Amino acid sequence: MYIVLLSGGSGKRLWPLSNDLRSKQYIKFLSRENDSSSVCSMVQRVMDQLQTAQLSQTTIICASAGQVEMLRSQLGNVNIAIEPDRRDTFPAVMLSCAYLASKLGASPEDVVCILPVDPYTEGSYFTTLKQLAHVVEHTETEIALMGAVPTCPSTKYGYIVPGAGHKGYRKVNCFKEKPDMRYAQALIKQNALWNCGVSCFKIGNILNRLSAYGLTPDYDLIYQHYDMLPKISFDYEVLEKADNLSVVPFNGLWKDLGSWSALCEEMHDIASGYVLMDKGCRDTHVINELNIPVVSMGLKDAVIVASFDGILVADKDACDNVKNIVQDIHLQPMYEERRWGTIKTIDVSQSGEKQTVIRKITIFQGMNSSYHYHNNRDEIWTVTQGRAELIIEGSSLLLEMGGAVSIKRGQKHAVKALEEFEYVEIHLGETAGDQDINRLTFDWDAVPKTML
Amino acid sequence: MYIVLLSGGSGKRLWPLSNDLRSKQYIKFLSRENDSSSVCSMVQRVMDQLQTAQLSQTTIICASAGQVEMLRSQLGNVNIAIEPDRRDTFPAVMLSCAYLASKLGASPEDVVCILPVDPYTEGSYFTTLKQLAHVVEHTETEIALMGAVPTCPSTKYGYIVPGAGHKGYRKVNCFKEKPDMRYAQALIKQNALWNCGVSCFKIGNILNRLSAYGLTPDYDLIYQHYDMLPKISFDYEVLEKADNLSVVPFNGLWKDLGSWSALCEEMHDIASGYVLMDKGCRDTHVINELNIPVVSMGLKDAVIVASFDGILVADKDACDNVKNIVQDIHLQPMYEERRWGTIKTIDVSQSGEKQTVIRKITIFQGMNSSYHYHNNRDEIWTVTQGRAELIIEGSSLLLEMGGAVSIKRGQKHAVKALEEFEYVEIHLGETAGDQDINRLTFDWDAVPKTML
Repeated sequence: MYIVLLSGGSGKRLWPLSNDLRSKQYIKFLSRENDSSSVCSMVQRVMDQLQTAQLSQTTIICASAGQVEMLRSQLGNVNIAIEPDRRDTFPAVMLSCAYLASKLGASPEDVVCILPVDPYTEGSYFTTLKQLAHVVEHTETEIALMGAVPTCPSTKYGYIVPGAGHKGYRKVNCFKEKPDMRYAQALIKQNALWNCGVSCFKIGNILNRLSAYGLTPDYDLIYQHYDMLPKISFDYEVLEKADNLSVVPFNGLWKDLGSWSALCEEMHDIASGYVLMDKGCRDTHVINELNIPVVSMGLKDAVIVASFDGILVADKDACDNVKNIVQDIHLQPMYEERRWGTIKTIDVSQSGEKQTVIRKITIFQGMNSSYHYHNNRDEIWTVTQGRAELIIEGSSLLLEMGGAVSIKRGQKHAVKALEEFEYVEIHLGETAGDQDINRLTFDWDAVPKTML
Repeated sequence: MYIVLLSGGSGKRLWPLSNDLRSKQYIKFLSRENDSSSVCSMVQRVMDQLQTAQLSQTTIICASAGQVEMLRSQLGNVNIAIEPDRRDTFPAVMLSCAYLASKLGASPEDVVCILPVDPYTEGSYFTTLKQLAHVVEHTETEIALMGAVPTCPSTKYGYIVPGAGHKGYRKVNCFKEKPDMRYAQALIKQNALWNCGVSCFKIGNILNRLSAYGLTPDYDLIYQHYDMLPKISFDYEVLEKADNLSVVPFNGLWKDLGSWSALCEEMHDIASGYVLMDKGCRDTHVINELNIPVVSMGLKDAVIVASFDGILVADKDACDNVKNIVQDIHLQPMYEERRWGTIKTIDVSQSGEKQTVIRKITIFQGMNSSYHYHNNRDEIWTVTQGRAELIIEGSSLLLEMGGAVSIKRGQKHAVKALEEFEYVEIHLGETAGDQDINRLTFDWDAVPKTML
């Protein structure tokens, strides 16, 4: 039995900690299951649980390229199916199954469970996964789903309405997306279950759909031609059209930590970072990632989150809506985790057309930028740590701590870290932001170099 | 009749907007009295009111050297008695009266009113000042005080207990510092008045105290020998020992905007800076000086203040205590207003003994730094605006936009802005902060220069 963890982007439901380039599943504020004194991220917690359930050896993660470095740093050497670009869950499932078949030698008859990377759950969830596999292996069921037994008429989850029953599982009658409160109450009377987003099936049953798109179950082939798969969700393309769907009820702890109010309930500490709270605060959580203090006084049932992207201060009952409020914020993310390192934008100032931007950039050892130039800005770099090779207009230059270099607009350049390399980049130019980049090549060996 | 506005430092009652180097009286969030659509600072509002009362021509401000540039930028050409260092209010009053005598030609018989720079009040307050002067001129009263008629038994103010009454004024019986609620109620039953911190007297009556310290009423002399005056408050040294004290009641609007709850009541806007509030917020004020958004959701009766020094989130009933909570914060102020310009610390990172600090520095046109060196840090400067002359080890260098220069530890340097000059300063060194500065001279003409 294989496991695929789908690691999506989290969007803005946990703004300001999650953004387009940083996902909530990597933020460390949960307690470790087997050591409540230490802190871990959602993805670390799930992998710990899979290991306890002896499922980790056959687990892979499907994630975008931008998440690979983060996954490796949090989980070590894990198998990752890399999405070349974001194309929704149907292509991601196809890519993952192809990875299992062509990289791990899975056979068409092998069973796989697809699950989100960030369920907040307990050990019996993983026992239930094995029941799903059992149902797929031993009944006429094509796809088995997991349905959590509701503990309240929640309006936040989708529901699965079961039909005829069997021992341990039931046919799926229909799906209902997030209902209003009255409808949720009616659904619970019909024994409807919360849709946990878990699907279990035989790998061959899904991979045989590839031929319709002119593809075969070869991971590298699909990776190269990923845009031949339609941008559509697995639920819509597969589940809604399937005949033999079953649901297995799960009666344990299951939560979607997709809002601040839900997350606060499970947080390891009521405060993280540089935080001062007076004695008048009650049921208030503070997360501070900035290097200036947050002082909280006399607040009840509030959540405060401060990051380089912004500051949220909300009553816990009101914060579930943060995604809608912040959709109008179109700032460049101030903190970005990239494949090759991190970018922290620490100051932006604008006067008329003129813009000055100060960024702190870290490049991991051995990583390099593309060979590129900018049309509308000069850059001045100051090295604060490590060593790197800079190629500028084809000439090589060694950058070391304390050194500074000026790169004018139009000058082609690329940089490669000889060891972990940190520098401050000052942009002097016209408003253009990250769009002002003209890439010539990503291939370091193809960058022209003299004086080496 | 002369007016002296005493401009003290505000300490931390309005943290994080006020700090040791930045005072609340300069922050612009009040409505202008004669134009409610525009915003002004406390000191601008008082000067507007003095002008309306035709008192501005004979008004001077007593302030520390660090506040002079700010006063000039907010008020234009105003007379300022400059405190060489902070020595409490008794020396400040002596210095101010000497300024009136030796710079403005005031005679010993002329009357002066000493008042704080930041009363939040209305036009009739200034009419009452004239009544104080009248009492000093035409009765046996040596010093006349202003007492506001209490509107509630406040525990935040000092009280003046009046004795025998005259038409329009009363003898002062005694003072009571901030009482508890019950005592405040008892004081009000005795017709006690709030101490507005206003004293009115004949200039000569106070200046004749100078001889006790070996000084004469000469401003320049006192400026040079300011440390010969004792570090003591005017209240303690003069008022508490005086025989002929009177108090004139004032029956109008008078508030000390010395807490966030008091200040919010008078703020021009409920939000300033980059702020998003949802419809669930009520009676909530947000001040954001950062360039990232503050999102406020579902909060009632709260105040949120975000600055480079920190973030305060408080229930309005709880925030009066902020001074006590933040006394444990011993960070270098992140934003500093200096005589010669401003310093904004935008990033500090520490790894072991190694510290990297990034600061944005503005130097006003014509201003210069001292000639100095650092023992424990190298600096790399990048010019983002303007032109300056840098003297480094006696050699002159012109700095222009886009230029970068490296200054090693031990290298003596000084800089003078030829036009408004902005640069990014990166410190690479060991933990030392602002203490690591060895000044050789402040006198630009004494800095050794070659190649000019």
